[in-house]
Amino acid sequence: MEGEKRENQNQAAEEEDQIVNPWEVAAKDGGKIDYDKLIDKFGCQRLDQTLIDRVHRLTGRPPHVFLRRGVFFAHRDFNEILDAYEKGKKFYLYTGRGPSSEALHIGHLVPFMFTKYLQDVFRVPLVIQLTDDEKCMWKNLTVEESQRLARENAKDIIACGFDITRTFIFSDFDYVGGAFYKNMVKVAKCVTLNKVQGIFGFSGEDHIGKISFPPVQAVPSFPSSFPHLFAGKDDLRCLIPCAIDQDPYFRMTRDAAPRIGYHKPSLIESTFFPALQGETGKMSASDPNSAIYVTDSAKVIKSKINKYAFSGGQDSVEKHRQLGANLEVDISVKYLNFFLEDDAELEHIKTEYAAGRMLTGEVKGRLGSVLYEIVERHRAARASVTDEVVDAFMAVRPLPNMFD
Amino acid sequence: MEGEKRENQNQAAEEEDQIVNPWEVAAKDGGKIDYDKLIDKFGCQRLDQTLIDRVHRLTGRPPHVFLRRGVFFAHRDFNEILDAYEKGKKFYLYTGRGPSSEALHIGHLVPFMFTKYLQDVFRVPLVIQLTDDEKCMWKNLTVEESQRLARENAKDIIACGFDITRTFIFSDFDYVGGAFYKNMVKVAKCVTLNKVQGIFGFSGEDHIGKISFPPVQAVPSFPSSFPHLFAGKDDLRCLIPCAIDQDPYFRMTRDAAPRIGYHKPSLIESTFFPALQGETGKMSASDPNSAIYVTDSAKVIKSKINKYAFSGGQDSVEKHRQLGANLEVDISVKYLNFFLEDDAELEHIKTEYAAGRMLTGEVKGRLGSVLYEIVERHRAARASVTDEVVDAFMAVRPLPNMFD
Repeated sequence: MEGEKRENQNQAAEEEDQIVNPWEVAAKDGGKIDYDKLIDKFGCQRLDQTLIDRVHRLTGRPPHVFLRRGVFFAHRDFNEILDAYEKGKKFYLYTGRGPSSEALHIGHLVPFMFTKYLQDVFRVPLVIQLTDDEKCMWKNLTVEESQRLARENAKDIIACGFDITRTFIFSDFDYVGGAFYKNMVKVAKCVTLNKVQGIFGFSGEDHIGKISFPPVQAVPSFPSSFPHLFAGKDDLRCLIPCAIDQDPYFRMTRDAAPRIGYHKPSLIESTFFPALQGETGKMSASDPNSAIYVTDSAKVIKSKINKYAFSGGQDSVEKHRQLGANLEVDISVKYLNFFLEDDAELEHIKTEYAAGRMLTGEVKGRLGSVLYEIVERHRAARASVTDEVVDAFMAVRPLPNMFD
Repeated sequence: MEGEKRENQNQAAEEEDQIVNPWEVAAKDGGKIDYDKLIDKFGCQRLDQTLIDRVHRLTGRPPHVFLRRGVFFAHRDFNEILDAYEKGKKFYLYTGRGPSSEALHIGHLVPFMFTKYLQDVFRVPLVIQLTDDEKCMWKNLTVEESQRLARENAKDIIACGFDITRTFIFSDFDYVGGAFYKNMVKVAKCVTLNKVQGIFGFSGEDHIGKISFPPVQAVPSFPSSFPHLFAGKDDLRCLIPCAIDQDPYFRMTRDAAPRIGYHKPSLIESTFFPALQGETGKMSASDPNSAIYVTDSAKVIKSKINKYAFSGGQDSVEKHRQLGANLEVDISVKYLNFFLEDDAELEHIKTEYAAGRMLTGEVKGRLGSVLYEIVERHRAARASVTDEVVDAFMAVRPLPNMFD
């Protein structure tokens, strides 16, 4: 029952502190999310340089920028995945998305970009869950609209470049049933109402769909939920790349796993991608000016950055030349930290900007070109994802060479 | 939200009164179940002679003994089913069983015998849900054992004589998914945690599988849960024959139905089949001497009746000849009321026994032969139900002539 004690300790703390759960991310009093506190609270581990070096050594490839820059900053038993991999044992990746909006913003791409990297360097299979049932229940969408959004989002996900010979994408409304449903029941038997109320904060006024949902997100962690992929491979380990707000689901899953005869899934967890207005939480899908969308034009990107990206620069050029920028709060620098691949250039920008030799406008200009390039590449890739391609990724089928 | 107010009124009353819910049936202080009180409490309607006469007229067949003798004694909107039927509109039947034990007792056969009658006289399709998921969760059986029991119980159900061209039997573990799961989510969205706690008495210590289950039993009430049978027939009405302890599930279902665009299911509800020891509740699967099993031999049946069937006769033959039997508490008479088809013979036995001219031993003897005949017939019928026959009933398939 790992985490149970922590849970109780943290509930009291949470009331006066930052809120991080799968549906809400809010820093304390409009400040920044304290990720160290979150690691303590959730009881996960910091992803330190030793582990990153180990990934480098084991894969023979430079660690992804999201590892080098601390975007993926926490984990649970990631070392065990690497131990197994080192001994020649493969694992599988599991990630997902709740399809609640038509267009993704660039923050939504972060876990998928990273998951693609993991798939490429470890050469392992991947399952991607589209929780259309969750969004139908939480966002009060119709079943049909949730499924439509799931397919639209699948196109954006596929556009990130996943390998169709190793990737199975599924909608809960389509796929729940059979072995998957049996695992849902097994998990549900291990979790009391008190427990989910403690973990997720459900109240008596919440509908029972919410209380029924956590096992749906739990069971892709178990290979037997995918008999067309992993029949007879119950011992296969699972690694889940996700943002840290999803940790509560997997804390619950890890408690249940050994009781029903499965490995606990391992996790590798990211920070949130901040809103243009500042690093107090996640980008908000409800405020279009808080985020850069993958559908935004070059002009819109430029204008949003210039207008809304919170600047750590000084009020006047004179003052800026004298004092330099505060990189800790500067959103353009934060965004470049995610997406500018060239370490040397990023270092240069940070040094010059902090010293006041580079102005906010110049940094924003560079960010605009970096983001535009990503969005353009995404747009082109997505345009080639036809309905047939979506069907192919979502077909319930064996993936015979998924470990080669 | 019918029933909501009643629910609250009844919770207080229930504490000092009889308990009837899907998992427990107990009369007040070891007395008899008060069915009139139950009708008031649950808010269903008494099934009166007018309705029985109407069934007679509409079907052109004598009403089933369970109707004539008040075994099926309560309903919800059964009149609406008959209204529709009278106008040439068909409906479908839905019943089920929680497969928690290997061998059925004769009380288990009651709803199936009656459902077969309804199928025969109305010539309508029938879906039979085997809630192996429920029993896995409530009885802590493994998934495999629950599914095995479901198949064994399916053989007993098929032995009751259902028409394979109009009958679909399904296991939840096999069938939950797709259209069925979508309806589960729709129902779950309509039901708050407070509501299920009020209806079913779940507590914080209960696991979330229990809280997730009610929508599983709810959605066979909606034709769209069976696209292979009722595609494009969303307007089809559903009639549910069941024992009255299942009413809480369908009260919940009827609240949700109009909110998600479906007809409320109609119900026709039976009393409980009493234990040999007396009419304080249902037969108990955990006490083999409380029930006659369909696997009991003639000798065992005779011995159980003689030893355990509570007698309303007097202590001595002299006193009995003088005072006669108390039919109100006599279990043999109760059982004959269920299973002796000949109205005239039953009347004769009751008159003679009440007058003291017939002794308990004679009544028990007659009951033995009636039950033995049923059990023998069942045993023969079940022996011919092969695994292939079970597969055929449980195949997800269209039933093209199900309304003919």
